[in-house]
Formats: sequence, C-alpha cells, structure tokens
Amino acid sequence: MDAISVIRAKRDGGRLSDAQIDWIIDAYTRGEVAHEQMSALAMAIFLNGMDRAEIARWTAAMIASGERMDFSSLPRPTADKHSTGGVGDKITLPLAPLVAACGAAVPQLSGRGLGHTGGTLDKLESIPGWRASLSNDEMLGVLSEVGSVICAAGDGLAPADKKLYALRDVTGTVESIPLIASSIMSKKIAEGTGSLVLDVKVGSGAFMKDIDAARELATTMVGLGTDHGVRTTALLTDMATPLGLTAGNALEVRESVEVLAGGGPADVVELTLALAREMLDAAGLPDADPAKALADGTAMDAWRRMISAQGGDPDAALPVAREQHIVTAESTGVLTRLDAYAVGVAAWRLGAGRARKEDPVQAGAGIEIHAKPGDHVTAGAPLLTLHTDTPSTFAYALEALEGATDYAPADTGFTTKPIVLERIA
Amino acid sequence: MDAISVIRAKRDGGRLSDAQIDWIIDAYTRGEVAHEQMSALAMAIFLNGMDRAEIARWTAAMIASGERMDFSSLPRPTADKHSTGGVGDKITLPLAPLVAACGAAVPQLSGRGLGHTGGTLDKLESIPGWRASLSNDEMLGVLSEVGSVICAAGDGLAPADKKLYALRDVTGTVESIPLIASSIMSKKIAEGTGSLVLDVKVGSGAFMKDIDAARELATTMVGLGTDHGVRTTALLTDMATPLGLTAGNALEVRESVEVLAGGGPADVVELTLALAREMLDAAGLPDADPAKALADGTAMDAWRRMISAQGGDPDAALPVAREQHIVTAESTGVLTRLDAYAVGVAAWRLGAGRARKEDPVQAGAGIEIHAKPGDHVTAGAPLLTLHTDTPSTFAYALEALEGATDYAPADTGFTTKPIVLERIA
Repeated sequence: MDAISVIRAKRDGGRLSDAQIDWIIDAYTRGEVAHEQMSALAMAIFLNGMDRAEIARWTAAMIASGERMDFSSLPRPTADKHSTGGVGDKITLPLAPLVAACGAAVPQLSGRGLGHTGGTLDKLESIPGWRASLSNDEMLGVLSEVGSVICAAGDGLAPADKKLYALRDVTGTVESIPLIASSIMSKKIAEGTGSLVLDVKVGSGAFMKDIDAARELATTMVGLGTDHGVRTTALLTDMATPLGLTAGNALEVRESVEVLAGGGPADVVELTLALAREMLDAAGLPDADPAKALADGTAMDAWRRMISAQGGDPDAALPVAREQHIVTAESTGVLTRLDAYAVGVAAWRLGAGRARKEDPVQAGAGIEIHAKPGDHVTAGAPLLTLHTDTPSTFAYALEALEGATDYAPADTGFTTKPIVLERIA
Repeated sequence: MDAISVIRAKRDGGRLSDAQIDWIIDAYTRGEVAHEQMSALAMAIFLNGMDRAEIARWTAAMIASGERMDFSSLPRPTADKHSTGGVGDKITLPLAPLVAACGAAVPQLSGRGLGHTGGTLDKLESIPGWRASLSNDEMLGVLSEVGSVICAAGDGLAPADKKLYALRDVTGTVESIPLIASSIMSKKIAEGTGSLVLDVKVGSGAFMKDIDAARELATTMVGLGTDHGVRTTALLTDMATPLGLTAGNALEVRESVEVLAGGGPADVVELTLALAREMLDAAGLPDADPAKALADGTAMDAWRRMISAQGGDPDAALPVAREQHIVTAESTGVLTRLDAYAVGVAAWRLGAGRARKEDPVQAGAGIEIHAKPGDHVTAGAPLLTLHTDTPSTFAYALEALEGATDYAPADTGFTTKPIVLERIA
C-alpha cells in the first residue's frame, strides 16, 4: 500500500477500499504519509466525493486512530449535542445543565471559535476562574457529580481528525460534506455518548448556505451515528439571523443565564427546548419536562454546580468591554433582515473571535442586538451596540455591517421563519 | 493575496488571474506557500484544468522564478529536442552530435530516469569518465567547441518547476496536461534554445497512452513555445514497442554508437533522422543532410569530441552486466506485439532504472531484444536477453514480462505501424 496509489484511485473517480482507507488514516496519523499527500487526497475527495460506505469507513478509521471514551459506568443515559456553528449560538450553555437537570448525563466536548463563528469554550472562559481543560478523570467526576460537563476534547480523541482538520483549514478543503461529516462524527462517537442531537445550521451565518446541502450533511451524519450505535437525530435550524440578542463571549454568557433564570430571548428559549426534547427522547427520557426545569430553577442549579465544579464563580461579575458604539436604524418600519454573517464578522473584528488559532479573544467584545427581524423600528433609534476594548476596530466592524439590514413599511405583514426548519432522524 | 483564495478559485472551477498565478509561483518558490497548499492546488488543476492563457502565464511565472540562459553569442543557430520519455529511447545520444555535425548548436539539458523510462544522463554515465554536471561556462565552452553538449540542468533554471515536479511525483498529480506542458516548456524556454522539436510518445510505454491526449499535450506545448518566441514543432511517435533493440544504460550507448557508425536498428535511424530534419529546419538549415552526416562519419566525429570534452573516453570498453538470462519465443510465426511498458518495467527491475531519486543505477543492466513486431520467430529461439549484476532480480523481471508478447501464424500479413504518427506545428 502506498499513498500515491490511494490518491490516484480517488483522483480518477474510483472508490477507496476499506484497506486503503484504514491504511492511509493510520499512516497519516503516524507521519508516514506526508501532509502534502493528504492534502492532495483531501482535494480529490472534495472534488470527486465519497459514497456512504467510504464515509463510514473513513469515520471509523479516524475513531480508531485514538482512544474511545466509555461512560457506561454512569447511572444515567448519556446525550450530547453538536452544532455546526453559527452567530450568537450560545445554546450549549443553557442546554447542557438543562438536560442534566432532566436526568440525562451530558458529556459536552466543545471547541474554540475560528472565523466569524464563536466557540463555546471562549464564551465560558469569560467567567472568572472557569477552566476548559480537564483530565478524563476530572471530566468523569464533574459528569457524575453535576450531570453535565463542558470541556475541551483531550488530545487522545481522534488524533487523525485533529491533524486533518488543521490541514484542511489551510488547503481550501473545508467545505466538503464527506470531510465535515466524518470529522464531526469521529469526535462525537469517540467521545462515547449514547445519543446525539445535531443542530445543522442553514443560512448566511452558517457553513451551509442552502438547505439542500444542510440536509445532505445532516442525513450523512445521522447515518454515521446510527451505524456506530449512537442514537442520532438532527434539526436543521435557521442561521440567516443571529440567535438571540447577543454575539460575543461574556455577552452570550449573560444571555444564557437569563434563559436559565426563566427569561431570555424567545428564539434562544425555543431552540434550547427543542434540542433538549430531542436529547431527552434519544436518551430514553421522553417524559422529562425541560420547560418546567427552566421555570423551577433546577436547570439554573445545575448550571451553577457545573461552573463551580470547573473552577468558575457563577456569581462573579462578567467582564465588560471598555468602549461602546451605537448603530442606529436607518428607516422607520419593520426590520426584515439582520444578516447573521455580517454580525458574526463584525463581532469577530471587534475582538470576540480570532483570525489564527493562537490569537487571544476579548471576553467583553461583541454586539448587542436591539431589534430582530419582525420588530418595529424607528429611524435613528439604537439597532446594535458594538462592544470592544480596542476602539480602532469600530470602523472595521461597521464596514462588515454595511448592507446587513433591510426594512419595510410598518404595514407589510412581514412574518418571521420558524427556528427549526426540519427534523431528520 | 493568500494561498487559500487561489486554491478555492481553481477548486470551484474558476480561472486563475495573472496576478494569482504570479503570486503563488513566486511565494511557493520562496517557501511562503507550503507544500501541502501547492499539492491541493495541483490536484485542483489536475481535476479542473487550466485554459491556454492560464497555462501560458503559469509557464512564464516558472521561467521567471530563475535565470534564463542566453546563447545569442554563439555563431550557430540553436536547436534542442525534448522527448516525453519512452523505453529504449536513446535518440538524444546520436541526435545531438548529428545535428551539431550539420551546423546547428544543440544545448541539450537532460534528466535522469525515474520509473520505467530511462534517463539520458544515466545512459551517458555508463561511459567511463563522462561527467553530467557542468557549470554554465563549461557548458557554453563545449557547445562552442563541439556544437553539442548533453548535461544536467543547473539549479538556477526554473527552480519553481524543480520544486513542483518533485511535489507532483509524490502526490499523484503527474499526468496532467497543463502541468506536464508547463513543466517541460518552462525548462526548455529558460534554457534559451532558439528552436525546439518535441518528441511526444504515444502508447503503452509512454505517459500518454492514447493519441488524443498526446496530441493535446503536443499542441499545448507547441503553442507555449511559439508564444515565447521559440520555433517549436512536435512529432507524435509510437511507443507501443521499445525503440531499437536495447533498453538499459550501456546497452543503449552501444546501440547509439552503431547508429553513428552508419548502422543500427532501422526504427532508431528513422526517428533520429526525422527529428534531425525537424531541428535543422527549425534552426534555418533546411539544406543540411543528416543522412549524409551519419554515412560519412562527421556525426561520429562530433560524438567523440562531445564525449571527450565532458571527460569521457569514447574508446573505453563499456560496462557489461555479470549475469544473463535468455527469454525464448513461445510460438513459431510472426511476433505481433512486444509491449514497451513491460520491457521498460523489466529493465528497471533488472537495475537499469531507479525506484527513488537517490538510488544508483547499474550501467550494464537491461534487455537486448532479438525480434521486433513483424519479425518471424521460432518457438524456443532467443527473444530477449536479460542483463543484470543482481541475478535475484531475474524472477521479478520475468514477472513483468508475462503477457508482453503476441504471436500470429507466419502468413498473417501483419504490418508494423510507422514510427512517426503525426506532425504538429
């Protein structure tokens, strides 16, 4: 077996055999296959695709490249959620303790943001003292004690995926459904969860701009999970508009705490509950009542215990950015569009996100949203508040926001789309 | 400008702008663009192609990555030949001194063999004392004094191509017409020849297995040469059968000397004269008579002076392999096929070629051919003699030769194809 023959097979439109896939993933992980060989193969996969059996084997080989966690010793059924990434997507923060409060165990291994989408760990790190890195034993301890844990994935899980993901990022081979699906699912399956709900975002702020591609990605991932014995479902959800009224690290933590306190923006509450019900169903707890757990404070209790268990102070004041700039509405009438991608890029430029993996993020930077599509607005009234520690970024953020809004007369009869567009099981 | 945006443009089926091409070739040569990024781009080019203007700019950027030689001080017009590589293709050896004897200057920068095709420098190095590496001044000296020189290309010519060629070799991105054409032509144009004849091989022993692909490659290269002011023509020539009666380094030198002495196999003589006439026409010497120069010994004189000028002894005994093995004809009748690829692989395995760039070759190893398609043969009579210093390779070579021959009854009326299939100008 050699790398060139594997590359040529895919280049020429053939399918890779199980033996070819097993060999190349293992040899790449060990460094025997060079980065430049894997990137040529990734581009050939990007352009010529993989069939379902190839994707399944590719995923299995990436899982086999590292350790696989085992939560079977826990008394509770495990349930996890993965989002393909969006703007203002803080759902993991209220969702994990909420589902724990309803009786499932939630081992949520999360990532950091790169580009215009935020990262769950970056958001939680705005809480003074909170630690993202836990050993496997610490993770299991928090999970047993609290019922949910949100932490960084250890280096032992799917190391082949870690290496390939970093390579795809610099070689223009990211937006490939076989490669995205196998990357997400290898990590989630290796993580050892018994059930999984996928939140596949669709729209300007998402990887997948159109619903057909999102549906194909979701269907592929549900198939992979099912084939590996993980009860998996997916919701296709709207990401044309930012989720909730904040984008940015501490700003989103604050909004998440509002949801856990029984308040918060309607769309965040709606999506949190929809995903919680999917997770609880998949975990075999169909009678749990997540709306009640938000209302009666048990979800908030789980949140406070989870944050404390990872060194954070749930009562500490959250960081606030040093400078603000207000963007006002351009017209009087109904706001009909607030572009998620533009808001995501603006928040990123204000310091909420990073351009390179090694960059720091600002805890207080981001955007507060004062009106969402469907809301009545008045010309000159505040529409957005931009927050940053580095006011030199305002001009750059405002540039990203140009053309991000549309307005219509007040009597247009504009209706907003539902958050959950489709369910795939 | 960044590598990812250039890769994405080609990946998504677009054309690269002049600025993108100039930037990526320069940045790759300087090491700013990583190997894994260039290999992803090479695969995208392989699968999505480049149009004529892109190939022309790509070639120009590779030429601009290094020095360009200048032979305008020579009193003679310059003419060069490039072969896309075949089995038993020793034509450069008699051709360069022959064309020099007819009045042109032949600055022949050659390569080493890799895989089943032999390399001109490997062949000449079987002559005791002969040196392939010359400085630019030494090269110009031999060219002025003898009229022809065959040597290794210096590191200063098209360094972008050197780097990309080595990368393509390990990433399954060799057999792409835009990449092959730009690679060959960037070196040949940088070399500074005034005219160029391309010998584009077609058939089992060639890169291009079918004539349509060979024609497209030839047309592309003729266009590139013409656009850069080099008078360029191409012959499409047969490589279904090995050229001549030998494949291997010293064996092919011996056969070349026979041709220079006025003898040698008919197909080698025919192709040598056809290419010589093309070169002399392109160099503005249409009245030269290469057949006469072979018959009257002036070509042999030029050969002897050229070998001596590069440290070789034209009278020295050539190395002979220590072991021989005879392969006999399987049937009585007419030999109708002797597969070039099989013979090339067998010679390679016997030690005439190398698997990796750093491997040595055996001077004496190779194959003598006792019958060619169209010849009458008798079952059990010698068909091939295998030569090697390492008799453990015989079994491996014989395996490559399985199924390499076809026979027909003596009265079949089998006719051989001409060597020159088409001319492209």
